Amino acid sequence: MKNPVCDLLGIKYPIIQAGMVWASGWRLASAVSNSGGLGLLGAGSMYPGVLREHIQKCRKATSNPFGVNVPLLYKDIDQLMEVILVENVPIVFTAAGNPKIWTEHLKKNGCQVVHVVSSVKFALKAQDCGVDAIVAEGFEAGGHNGREETTTMTLIPLIKKSIKIPLIAAGGIGSGPAMLAAMALGADAVQVGSRFVASPEASSHDNFKKEILKAQQGATLLTLKELTPVRMMKNPFFQKIQTLYENGASINELKEALGRGRAKKGMFEGDLIEGELEIGQVSAQIEQIIPAKSIIKEFIETYNRALKNLSEIN
Amino acid sequence: MKNPVCDLLGIKYPIIQAGMVWASGWRLASAVSNSGGLGLLGAGSMYPGVLREHIQKCRKATSNPFGVNVPLLYKDIDQLMEVILVENVPIVFTAAGNPKIWTEHLKKNGCQVVHVVSSVKFALKAQDCGVDAIVAEGFEAGGHNGREETTTMTLIPLIKKSIKIPLIAAGGIGSGPAMLAAMALGADAVQVGSRFVASPEASSHDNFKKEILKAQQGATLLTLKELTPVRMMKNPFFQKIQTLYENGASINELKEALGRGRAKKGMFEGDLIEGELEIGQVSAQIEQIIPAKSIIKEFIETYNRALKNLSEIN
Repeated sequence: MKNPVCDLLGIKYPIIQAGMVWASGWRLASAVSNSGGLGLLGAGSMYPGVLREHIQKCRKATSNPFGVNVPLLYKDIDQLMEVILVENVPIVFTAAGNPKIWTEHLKKNGCQVVHVVSSVKFALKAQDCGVDAIVAEGFEAGGHNGREETTTMTLIPLIKKSIKIPLIAAGGIGSGPAMLAAMALGADAVQVGSRFVASPEASSHDNFKKEILKAQQGATLLTLKELTPVRMMKNPFFQKIQTLYENGASINELKEALGRGRAKKGMFEGDLIEGELEIGQVSAQIEQIIPAKSIIKEFIETYNRALKNLSEIN
Repeated sequence: MKNPVCDLLGIKYPIIQAGMVWASGWRLASAVSNSGGLGLLGAGSMYPGVLREHIQKCRKATSNPFGVNVPLLYKDIDQLMEVILVENVPIVFTAAGNPKIWTEHLKKNGCQVVHVVSSVKFALKAQDCGVDAIVAEGFEAGGHNGREETTTMTLIPLIKKSIKIPLIAAGGIGSGPAMLAAMALGADAVQVGSRFVASPEASSHDNFKKEILKAQQGATLLTLKELTPVRMMKNPFFQKIQTLYENGASINELKEALGRGRAKKGMFEGDLIEGELEIGQVSAQIEQIIPAKSIIKEFIETYNRALKNLSEIN
């Protein structure tokens, strides 16, 4: 495939592995980059020193491009960005914050910058800030999510029409046919999160990975909309939040119940009862833990088969 | 296109116009059927006698197949079904209720029966009841909606994998590329609602149609989840409901605020302040009121163009 996102990022297949907290370390990112996709380190769950270590290990493990995902609301963002620049990371995906502050700085230092949004408004703002491409993430995606609840199916055509730079679709994309659907809607590439959590290379806890295999339709829901909307599994921790809602809890009570370190507890430490388990709706489609390389191979094969089927029925 | 839904329903294009309350009368349904799609009358907002009139007028206006959409929770369902059978309507789409009660009866009388669901569980139940096809409707769809909030992108592959009968995708499909996306995901056909509301043939009030043209991303939200979840525009009536939520309203207070006839008031009488305006997320993509025939033509043209683009980049 010849395509603007592949050209921009120097990758073979237009498949980007999302830089997810507690999942996307150097093992996953390098495995994806070695398989022709773009691997991303998830800096959101790393101290600056830990990120440096992951960057160095990732570089040793692959000679292909890889990147870092940075939530711009990260507390010690200056230190994180310094690590990224000192270590010469070629690609930075920014999210959860204003791209105005960092885009120019990163680009001056030779980085490709891609910003993640969930609305047309913020896609246009990011384009104005000079980012090289946009990730548009739909309501079905796991983890933090937009307030407008726009799904991938409706978001992608809207953003495609509004921007001039390359567009990467995210949310609900767990197979080649879904990748084809995203590209039919106007995306140039896809960002895949949940599917890569269920790989041996993801640093997520095995308990969490096994829970993903059990997930059926309706296993996740977007909640905590008064704080930051987040899609998570309906585990006992989620039920606790639901009970608070039913009892008319205040924002402060919700904050207190959430506390700190819930995501780590669930996804990294494997506490399925008390932890927060962030995953997308697509978890209901995931039936096997397979290596990143096999995931990409399966994407490409099923993409091609689906395209062939479509062409034949026409 | 040769396709199982076209074969089943005797139509040229795999495009079904949703049988929407206060929008889908004989003018819209016959225009769609005359253009090669399947037109559906929306019985949910019709008394049995009114439905009879619409069936008779529709039959005069088209020699092609058309159908009726019946919400199974309709109060005088027996009378409604009698009208449908006496008038020999060839196709019945059932929704909002248990298909067990009516499917066999309708099929014995020679009807094709299609049931609308929003989950794998109910798709399987409907298949067991003997329906001929399934409509799977995603979270982005307008009007009443499922509790699991599964989007079209993730719902279609799940249901496709679970059932053996033909599958029609609904929710977020307002253009040819979205139709192509749905078919890439495994659908055999699409059901299109919102796009057809913005047509001169829809019986919806002009005020409502014009409001759809103004809709931007985020213009709708799923609400009243404690009663029946419904996606509507964020107009003053919606805001009133939101305020009740913020004040911790009980289910009874919500019911009282909703009252009766809200949908009619908004969509048929054009009261944009006090009425309920049910429409899908795809409303943000709709920019023109055009005839049903032009909508179908545009779908087919943009579907073919999108497929050609996909084939070329591969």
